[in-house]
Amino acid sequence: MTSPKVRVDPVETLRWVGEVLEMIDQRVLPAQFVYVQCRSAKDVADAIRNMVVRGAPAIGCAAACGMALEAVRSASLSREDFNNAMKSAADLLLESRPTAVNLAWGVARMQQVMMRRPAAPDVTAREMLAEAHEVLAEDVRVNRTMGAHGAKLLQDGDRVLTHCNAGALAAAGHGTALGVVRSAIEAGKRLQIIAGETRPFLQGARLTAWEMVESGIPVTLITDGMSGHLMSRGEIDAVIVGADRVAANGDVANKIGTYMVAVLANRHSIPFYVACPTSTLDMALASGDLIPIEERHASEVTGYGEMRWAPEGISVRNPAFDITPASLVTALITEKGVVHAPNRERLAELMKR
Amino acid sequence: MTSPKVRVDPVETLRWVGEVLEMIDQRVLPAQFVYVQCRSAKDVADAIRNMVVRGAPAIGCAAACGMALEAVRSASLSREDFNNAMKSAADLLLESRPTAVNLAWGVARMQQVMMRRPAAPDVTAREMLAEAHEVLAEDVRVNRTMGAHGAKLLQDGDRVLTHCNAGALAAAGHGTALGVVRSAIEAGKRLQIIAGETRPFLQGARLTAWEMVESGIPVTLITDGMSGHLMSRGEIDAVIVGADRVAANGDVANKIGTYMVAVLANRHSIPFYVACPTSTLDMALASGDLIPIEERHASEVTGYGEMRWAPEGISVRNPAFDITPASLVTALITEKGVVHAPNRERLAELMKR
Repeated sequence: MTSPKVRVDPVETLRWVGEVLEMIDQRVLPAQFVYVQCRSAKDVADAIRNMVVRGAPAIGCAAACGMALEAVRSASLSREDFNNAMKSAADLLLESRPTAVNLAWGVARMQQVMMRRPAAPDVTAREMLAEAHEVLAEDVRVNRTMGAHGAKLLQDGDRVLTHCNAGALAAAGHGTALGVVRSAIEAGKRLQIIAGETRPFLQGARLTAWEMVESGIPVTLITDGMSGHLMSRGEIDAVIVGADRVAANGDVANKIGTYMVAVLANRHSIPFYVACPTSTLDMALASGDLIPIEERHASEVTGYGEMRWAPEGISVRNPAFDITPASLVTALITEKGVVHAPNRERLAELMKR
Repeated sequence: MTSPKVRVDPVETLRWVGEVLEMIDQRVLPAQFVYVQCRSAKDVADAIRNMVVRGAPAIGCAAACGMALEAVRSASLSREDFNNAMKSAADLLLESRPTAVNLAWGVARMQQVMMRRPAAPDVTAREMLAEAHEVLAEDVRVNRTMGAHGAKLLQDGDRVLTHCNAGALAAAGHGTALGVVRSAIEAGKRLQIIAGETRPFLQGARLTAWEMVESGIPVTLITDGMSGHLMSRGEIDAVIVGADRVAANGDVANKIGTYMVAVLANRHSIPFYVACPTSTLDMALASGDLIPIEERHASEVTGYGEMRWAPEGISVRNPAFDITPASLVTALITEKGVVHAPNRERLAELMKR
């Protein structure tokens, strides 16, 4: 294995260009690298719903930015109309996707800025725009801190399986699960990534693979049915994934297929790590079975993009997430530290730090 | 649930038209329904390698027919040249794909006809052609007997998960795993099929879904990462799959992804059935880890058909099969009967029947 050359934070998943929010269009990567411009909360809600932007931390950041965009647009309104506009924006953003709790976190954070002190709408709008910039910067800082904590769990030479994309593209930068990988490599460890393709949206084949190539990190692509076989042959040393929501007892909602990987890792005594910021923890939900699971369009399963390969006349199921029980999680990696064998007590203790 | 209307054996996967063997081109189903014509062992070997025809029993039948085609082509040669031609044909067919043992079975069966009695090549060729016809007819009979045995294991109302395609398209007709389903429905049971799409070749999304629609059997398509989630929600009552090779101890080689489904079924106490003719049993192999696993082209994983969605610069793994240990198999269903909790002793006893 040659010494790795890692380019750090190669992409700006979300960026402000003046008072316009730009996001990489993740539906068309890696064939095309283009930015979509958002000028309102509705633009952002549409982008979240259509998966221009995806990944729990990125969705949280986008929602915060969507609130700021709407505030700037509404800055010349009366205080009452401004408040109504912000209420509508929040509703629109909150209903765009149901599973990632970061979305609610991003909206709530901007509402706190609004309520911090009474001010004219244009003053509040400026404050919200500044806060949205801070949300993006903070997300990268959080991911770097998380990466430093998690990097210690990975060993030199590890072949690390990941599912979906919990990388720089799923956040404002660096990434959660792949942020831990980046940090471990920056610390001198040689790692290889095995990326599950993650049907139906192919976040692994398109986004994780692209991010790893861009960063010069060796990556091997497999289909979602192959990880168990590789584990049985001793070809995977660790699993690391992100999360869309973690319940108070440590149950993890993540991209559909994660649960099967976790069960197989457990069978083969391979550590299964979940990396996410504490903004992904939903301490109000007792357990994973209370997490709403989004069911998406049948057309995602019957083909890909413009191509359809399944016949007419069938039914389709398309749950976008599944629940991995806490008992299968070796450790939860957050910016506040690592929680081994997460459970209710340990997560409560983490949140107090 | 409405009363099912099942059309029996809707397709002829392999058929003789005079002295030409025709096979449905399974690479282009369901978008196109076309037959490919084979006139030599090389034509058949190419069709097997390129997956025009796939499925262990169908490959076994095709190999037998390939030997017959070559015999007919070589009928006017000297005995020595005929024997050499048949030796070359056997070698060509045997190396077309490594995992399914039925391929060797089909070739060996035709070699037995050759060695049965000394005769002029044209006489032997006629006998081999007759035997090839019999192999196809026998495969359907075997599947119907297997279906009758296995049908008793499925309950009225069951939601039955299958992986890959072990249907009429994987055999000369009726099918193995889906043959059991067909037989259970013919016996009056109402079943729903849940089909895993089976990346990378999409046998589930294309072939199983198509076969079920053609037969009027309700089918729900999912991606390969979804079955664990459905099991955890109590939405799957039984799993039934085919096999490409079964070792003497009951370990099962089947389409990549089967092992993960078996592990999840075990975790959720859902019966996991394997249906295959005894020609799929390889009593010469002690255990599954001795079964050769074919590694196919990277291009199957980096996209589908003409479409490529993964970036350049990545590595790819593409094992076509995996091994499910016997301990995860609730029962093996064959034409000689059902073996519950298969192991070495029980399989040896089955083969003596």
